[in-house]
Amino acid sequence: MEQQIITELKRLVGSDYVMEQLEDRICYSFDATFRDFPPDVVVKPGNVEEIAAIVKLAGKYRLPVTARGAATGLSGGAVPVQGGISLVLTRLNKILAIDTANRVAVVETGVIAEDFVNAVSQAGLFYPPDPGSIKTATIGGTIAECAGGPRGVKYGITRDYVLGLEVVLPDGRIVEVGNRFDSEMAGPDWGMLFVGSEGTLGIVTKAYLKLIDKPKAKQTLLAVFNSLDDAARTVSEMIASGTIPTTLEIMDNMTIRAVEDFLKVGLPVNAEAILLIEVDGSAKAIAKQAEHVIKVCRQCGATEMQVASTPEDMDKLWRARRAISPACGKINPTKISEDATVPRSQIPAMVRRLREIAQKYNLKMVIFGHAGDGNLHPNILSNKHDHAEMERVEQAVAELFKEALHLGGTLSGEHGIGYMKAPFLKWETGETGFAAGKKLKQVIDQQELLNPGKLFNV
Amino acid sequence: MEQQIITELKRLVGSDYVMEQLEDRICYSFDATFRDFPPDVVVKPGNVEEIAAIVKLAGKYRLPVTARGAATGLSGGAVPVQGGISLVLTRLNKILAIDTANRVAVVETGVIAEDFVNAVSQAGLFYPPDPGSIKTATIGGTIAECAGGPRGVKYGITRDYVLGLEVVLPDGRIVEVGNRFDSEMAGPDWGMLFVGSEGTLGIVTKAYLKLIDKPKAKQTLLAVFNSLDDAARTVSEMIASGTIPTTLEIMDNMTIRAVEDFLKVGLPVNAEAILLIEVDGSAKAIAKQAEHVIKVCRQCGATEMQVASTPEDMDKLWRARRAISPACGKINPTKISEDATVPRSQIPAMVRRLREIAQKYNLKMVIFGHAGDGNLHPNILSNKHDHAEMERVEQAVAELFKEALHLGGTLSGEHGIGYMKAPFLKWETGETGFAAGKKLKQVIDQQELLNPGKLFNV
Ligand SMILES: Cc1cc2nc3c(=O)[nH]c(=O)nc-3n(C[C@H](O)[C@H](O)[C@H](O)COP(=O)(O)OP(=O)(O)OC[C@H]3O[C@@H](n4cnc5c(N)ncnc54)[C@H](O)[C@@H]3O)c2cc1C
Ligand SMILES: Cc1cc2nc3c(=O)[nH]c(=O)nc-3n(C[C@H](O)[C@H](O)[C@H](O)COP(=O)(O)OP(=O)(O)OC[C@H]3O[C@@H](n4cnc5c(N)ncnc54)[C@H](O)[C@@H]3O)c2cc1C
Repeated sequence: MEQQIITELKRLVGSDYVMEQLEDRICYSFDATFRDFPPDVVVKPGNVEEIAAIVKLAGKYRLPVTARGAATGLSGGAVPVQGGISLVLTRLNKILAIDTANRVAVVETGVIAEDFVNAVSQAGLFYPPDPGSIKTATIGGTIAECAGGPRGVKYGITRDYVLGLEVVLPDGRIVEVGNRFDSEMAGPDWGMLFVGSEGTLGIVTKAYLKLIDKPKAKQTLLAVFNSLDDAARTVSEMIASGTIPTTLEIMDNMTIRAVEDFLKVGLPVNAEAILLIEVDGSAKAIAKQAEHVIKVCRQCGATEMQVASTPEDMDKLWRARRAISPACGKINPTKISEDATVPRSQIPAMVRRLREIAQKYNLKMVIFGHAGDGNLHPNILSNKHDHAEMERVEQAVAELFKEALHLGGTLSGEHGIGYMKAPFLKWETGETGFAAGKKLKQVIDQQELLNPGKLFNV
Repeated sequence: MEQQIITELKRLVGSDYVMEQLEDRICYSFDATFRDFPPDVVVKPGNVEEIAAIVKLAGKYRLPVTARGAATGLSGGAVPVQGGISLVLTRLNKILAIDTANRVAVVETGVIAEDFVNAVSQAGLFYPPDPGSIKTATIGGTIAECAGGPRGVKYGITRDYVLGLEVVLPDGRIVEVGNRFDSEMAGPDWGMLFVGSEGTLGIVTKAYLKLIDKPKAKQTLLAVFNSLDDAARTVSEMIASGTIPTTLEIMDNMTIRAVEDFLKVGLPVNAEAILLIEVDGSAKAIAKQAEHVIKVCRQCGATEMQVASTPEDMDKLWRARRAISPACGKINPTKISEDATVPRSQIPAMVRRLREIAQKYNLKMVIFGHAGDGNLHPNILSNKHDHAEMERVEQAVAELFKEALHLGGTLSGEHGIGYMKAPFLKWETGETGFAAGKKLKQVIDQQELLNPGKLFNV
């Protein structure tokens, strides 16, 4: 990278916040996926004006800019595949306001999601989106990916909580889009363009987020099944029966074994599947919901039910859910994590097809995920140095995408497209939809500076 | 209009569905606002392919196309201010599916909103958006306006229920945007661009709408206040205290008197304000909520509370709410209906300012609206033939817009911008926001065919 550019960047943000050494650049070359590309320079701005100035500078020199929160993304969004600037947003870490009267929080986007959720909770309110990466991911990253999480089935996902955003556009202008409070606004909600846009349309610097009532109490249940199909069927039956649990997580036998090996919490290792179900509300409402949950599970073939009511017991069950990723990582080094999603009623069909695909390509596949949303996480456990295996993985992944779309679903329920799934995006959008997305991208970002190589930007 | 075009239109949709006589055109020249412009021709297509063909034809001859549902809009959206084609969508009147397993309905956009709500209810589920015009308005119109309603405070507004849309773009292509079921999707949610776009970006022909659980029971309460300010304060206190009623409607003294004159249902005509409050949920939850509502109202100065539990008593109270529009229409012929909206915590301040404005310009103003949302409906009752008065109205309206924006609010909580508020839009968006909106409009609609003279399209 030209020294001239480095000098200008240092003038803009201070030399402490510009890193150009190879060892630093390597630290910013990867995310939670398995490929890496180093940026030419890492810049850590401290405020929106600095970001606007950096983006303008990038325009002048036609340098790619890849926004980066905590790099926990699962589709390669924060990886600078074409080099340029890695724009690290973690210094924008202030919670600016928690307005309980209007139930709105104003937050800088570098704030860690869990810190924000905790602050809201302390103010007596609730911000539901809860990706597994909540302890590390930034609010900006969750907005850019439109993150979901276990609670999505009852409480919705990030886009349901974004009211308005402050955004630095690709030409360096700073705009506010959407709304500052929870009500309507004039005209269409442009703000929504940036939710899920994976850093390709603008740098989100501040968010106005909707807060809701905190549920008074909760209870966690575990249902054990001898058949994965029964478990899958339970999910759609449960929702259709009118009871929407806060979470409805599925784990298949291989997932259960992996977690139990890793944690030793006493999971039923012979079960074909378990469902982890949480209900919330008033104490009375919980009791009633739990009763109903047990009834539906039993009707659909659950062989055993556990009910956890103390915080410790509940935590034990949730620890198991949270341990899936690390536990699987121990089995095989390369974890290909998909999140193809189908309408809830198609979960049983999708689960059957996933098993067939794993068998056909002779691959180790664990199946778990936010089943209540139809959001399954088939993970293929493989080894990236085994080239023959990796070829089979590629074919299996393509086949599972096709299957999800065929069942009326989507390539990615929540992990985004990034560069990992960009080659498949057209299958979902069709040629017209893809062309429309690409055109809109080009209109908003004429120089195609922001996050090239991702989403429509390929 | 050239006979050639009429002939082509008749070939496209059949001659029964093309109307060119002045008396027919006049019937399609107005909506619920007070100015009218006749289209050059009225066309009533029967399906999406016909609509695509009409839009292409309009492109060929550079004719404006103004979509029209039931013309109940309150900002002039369906009025063809530049002539051209009035595209009437009422023949798209089929409810295509109510999928209870996935809680999604698929509906053509010409379906009357209440017919849809009733069908959903019969299937055991609930579609909350409930504008006052629900018996007449089309689903397409409510999507194009992003309509809200009394239940918005608890259940959100139209955009919270739109999953995906089928849209005819201005170049005649038919696309599906958004999602077919309630989960995430790849990339940003382009579908949201069309919600609230008031017919300026595309013709919405089909909608995938999210359904939720039906509340088991409800109860309506009426709180009487000697001071409008106390009533306004009650609203923000109520929400801040953590109880979110299904509805929280305010009516000031002048509104109460107008309705009582009209209906004779025994409203307290000496009260400075009343709040109409509904709670819903299980029988137990309702009892608890009602108790809390009564407590907060009393603390904030309510002098009297009525509780309606039977369907008849509840209906009596709601009839009063629904009668506001016709009742006010009887006082003075020209009702200038605004819906400037402020953050909830600013309702007391906004109400005070509205009264000052009415006094300053010597105007009759009734204040009512969805107070729980901060969505006030100040209506100026005037006579459009009294020019001096109409000038004062204009000044008062400008002042009330300024005030709402100053308090952090918006020009229009739910009635849209149309052509009535287009001259003020920049005050809200700023120059940059306006330019961005206009540019996006031009990109999507290069010939600026769709609904010229509205929103950003001026
Ligand atoms: C163990 C684990 C569990 C997970 N569980 C879930 C889950 O349950 N549900 C779920 O939805 N996701 C889950 N995820 C993925 C989730 O999408 C990410 O963790 C999170 O959204 C990314 O946040 P981040 O700050 O790390 O963003 P990064 O990875 O740094 O960036 C992600 C994308 O957002 C862009 N970006 C980041 N900040 C901004 C900004 N301020 N403005 C514009 N663009 C920006 C980047 O350019 C990139 O394209 C999980 C990930 C892991 C590793
Ligand atoms: C008495 C009364 C009470 C009301 N109460 C409320 C309320 O409580 N809350 C609220 O939010 N609103 C309320 N409204 C206004 C509300 O916005 C409209 O009633 C409704 O949304 C318009 O539906 P419509 O079918 O009549 O649309 P129209 O008036 O025909 O059209 C409205 C706009 O939508 C466009 N449009 C219509 N159909 C389509 C389509 N299929 N594709 C693209 N564009 C389309 C039109 O071009 C126009 O710009 C009320 C109106 C009245 C008269």
